Amino acid sequence: MSRYDQKLEYILRTAARIFAEKSYHSTSMRDISRATNVSLAGLYHYCKSKDELLFLIQDNCFGRVLERLEERLQDVEDPIAKLGIFIENHLSFFAANMAEMKVLSHEAESLQGEMYSQVSTRKDKYTNLARKILREVQETQKSEQPIDLTVATYALFGMMNWIYNWYDPRGKLKVSDLADNLLQLFLGGFVRNGMSHQFSLRSEMPSVWGHG
Amino acid sequence: MSRYDQKLEYILRTAARIFAEKSYHSTSMRDISRATNVSLAGLYHYCKSKDELLFLIQDNCFGRVLERLEERLQDVEDPIAKLGIFIENHLSFFAANMAEMKVLSHEAESLQGEMYSQVSTRKDKYTNLARKILREVQETQKSEQPIDLTVATYALFGMMNWIYNWYDPRGKLKVSDLADNLLQLFLGGFVRNGMSHQFSLRSEMPSVWGHG
Repeated sequence: MSRYDQKLEYILRTAARIFAEKSYHSTSMRDISRATNVSLAGLYHYCKSKDELLFLIQDNCFGRVLERLEERLQDVEDPIAKLGIFIENHLSFFAANMAEMKVLSHEAESLQGEMYSQVSTRKDKYTNLARKILREVQETQKSEQPIDLTVATYALFGMMNWIYNWYDPRGKLKVSDLADNLLQLFLGGFVRNGMSHQFSLRSEMPSVWGHG
Repeated sequence: MSRYDQKLEYILRTAARIFAEKSYHSTSMRDISRATNVSLAGLYHYCKSKDELLFLIQDNCFGRVLERLEERLQDVEDPIAKLGIFIENHLSFFAANMAEMKVLSHEAESLQGEMYSQVSTRKDKYTNLARKILREVQETQKSEQPIDLTVATYALFGMMNWIYNWYDPRGKLKVSDLADNLLQLFLGGFVRNGMSHQFSLRSEMPSVWGHG
């Protein structure tokens, strides 16, 4: 990473923390200048406006989590393995980016125009990929009363994204245990018939997780 | 309800809608006066400050959803029936109060001091009741690898509370279907061994839901 990129990353990270603490609307460029120790003029060298800061945070996050996911899904055929990878990828990424997660959630509608469209396109792509994996999982099952795919998709995002309200990545519960628990909880209900018993991220899928 | 109470409810409802649209911090009492068509002086007759408005919205919601739940749980012994009631009660209340739900979630930390404490106490009471029901459900099961109770509690709140981001109560999917799907999804994973197959809010629990 170039020095410019490193500095930009530091600015984005600090801005995300402040947006998460006091909301995007209540934050000024002056607040960010103070927190980063970068002069206002210096700040405008990295981004043209507060809008662009928010855009870069949102766009980077969806871009990175999606890119990591697509890499990890290469050569994976089994739908349930894909779902496991999706959940672990999302949780491990956002557990390391909790402030960003809160900002993505709370400030989803704070941008307008071109910047809003670009973030929405990435977010839709990510959501559709999740939905596609869930459909594949569902198609492997014969269920008389399948769970609605839209409800299932948003329930999964809900249980994962809610962690910014309660989870402490430095606490006793490790991210891998969190992912394991949520995978079991979701899979057991979505797939039925005790799939959950046969499935654990850690014990059953070492080869999949090994190269992550 | 007295005329005073009716007017206050109307003000709270409108305020919740505006807080949800443009955030608490970006909303002024003048905005609320404009939207309600109540003069600023009139508004201060119902609440002393914008803080108090937010407090009343939060306190009312947690108070009402908790009160309704406690009423419905009277005389119910079966832990799984209790969980079904909890989920249906939460979803039907908040599907009718989506703006409030968003405000509860986004502005959880916007109050301070006494007002913050009182809302927190109610919220903790509600959360602990959910956790207690989940513990009871878990105790009826013999599972080698039970799901962490904290993860399960917040996963349940996450999947339910996320609906303010996507669910349209006036759309095709009825609240009862939403509740039924989420109950199946959660129960199947939490309780294991296909409990979900035996369980549907509508078909199995008519007597419980009849007096709701």
